[in-house]
Amino acid sequence: MSVIFYCGSGSPYAWRVWLALEHKQIPYDLKILSFDAGDLRKPEFLKMNPRHRVPVIVDGDFVLYESAAILEYLEDQYPAANPRQALFPVNVRQRAVVRRLIREIDQYFSEGVERLVEQILFTPQQKWNEEKIAAGRKICHKELAYCERTLSGDFLAGELSAADFTLYPLLALVLRMMQRKPELAMIEAIGPKLNSWKQRMEALPYFRKTYPPHWK
Amino acid sequence: MSVIFYCGSGSPYAWRVWLALEHKQIPYDLKILSFDAGDLRKPEFLKMNPRHRVPVIVDGDFVLYESAAILEYLEDQYPAANPRQALFPVNVRQRAVVRRLIREIDQYFSEGVERLVEQILFTPQQKWNEEKIAAGRKICHKELAYCERTLSGDFLAGELSAADFTLYPLLALVLRMMQRKPELAMIEAIGPKLNSWKQRMEALPYFRKTYPPHWK
Repeated sequence: MSVIFYCGSGSPYAWRVWLALEHKQIPYDLKILSFDAGDLRKPEFLKMNPRHRVPVIVDGDFVLYESAAILEYLEDQYPAANPRQALFPVNVRQRAVVRRLIREIDQYFSEGVERLVEQILFTPQQKWNEEKIAAGRKICHKELAYCERTLSGDFLAGELSAADFTLYPLLALVLRMMQRKPELAMIEAIGPKLNSWKQRMEALPYFRKTYPPHWK
Repeated sequence: MSVIFYCGSGSPYAWRVWLALEHKQIPYDLKILSFDAGDLRKPEFLKMNPRHRVPVIVDGDFVLYESAAILEYLEDQYPAANPRQALFPVNVRQRAVVRRLIREIDQYFSEGVERLVEQILFTPQQKWNEEKIAAGRKICHKELAYCERTLSGDFLAGELSAADFTLYPLLALVLRMMQRKPELAMIEAIGPKLNSWKQRMEALPYFRKTYPPHWK
């Protein structure tokens, strides 16, 4: 039986789960919901997630939301036969570092991204609050500099892990917002190590498959 | 060898770790840092956590920050002989629910709490922005109502878990802010189930020991 995966095109939180499902080669049944059509406000969806957000997975009779909890669940429920398909390292300290990184991305970088999203994607351009945009930009730049400083191997925690699947979609979303607001200067904020990392992520064999449909 | 635990009196994130250390009966060496004295800005502390935040733990030569990652680490590194001392359930789905709850508390309730902290604790009263306070209060009330609606057993996920240690200190901080701003009306927002839960938390044998020193 496949895991049912409720996704919203372009949601960085759903994208992380999509990458994880592909990485672990877990069979899944993709349901792409439409934000515009109000799919996330429909009663049948609210029954699954009262916060009307994606992603949601349904595994048999078990419903789970919150993307970071979903990644941990997939790892626990579908342990990788091949260690290269794991989302979290086996070593306790390395695992702790991956979890710390995920938290940092979700607490700090994500805050900057959300501030930009609220203005650049959800506010008409003529009403943009430049002060709020500058505040979001500042956080994003600071956090990207932190990543550049701390990145030491091929991936955020050495081997490819859930931390990479957490950062990439958020970074991609910020870069996409630059199409509307080039002054965000996000590309300039990505240092050489982070840039190589980004290319490595985009070269993953399943990357194209998970690319947000409406971004293509 | 004890775990060295860097704590800040009144920090809800540090308090969660303190409760977890006590719950698991892990020997620890408590270091209470002073926010006012600038302990968190000192170079030796920044070397441990570049974000100059508490909590931080040092376990042998391993340094870890971010409270939610610390709780997972303590559970992995010091598995409980007695299941009543566990922070996370053994059952994969129950464990996923605990992690989902922790995420919800940290993403949503915590956002409301942080907004209130910024105004009520870190802004002089004559400069309080009542609009910002109202926004924080609204989030807190909504999230407490969500907890009341979803609480079905003695604790947030049935058995006492890391989720309870995550919520309690944040709730206690909001209640404490009511001393400065009674109109937050947090007590009124706590439903009967959540109120019984709160009493259960305060009756834990190690609760008093972890109470923020400067609140006493």
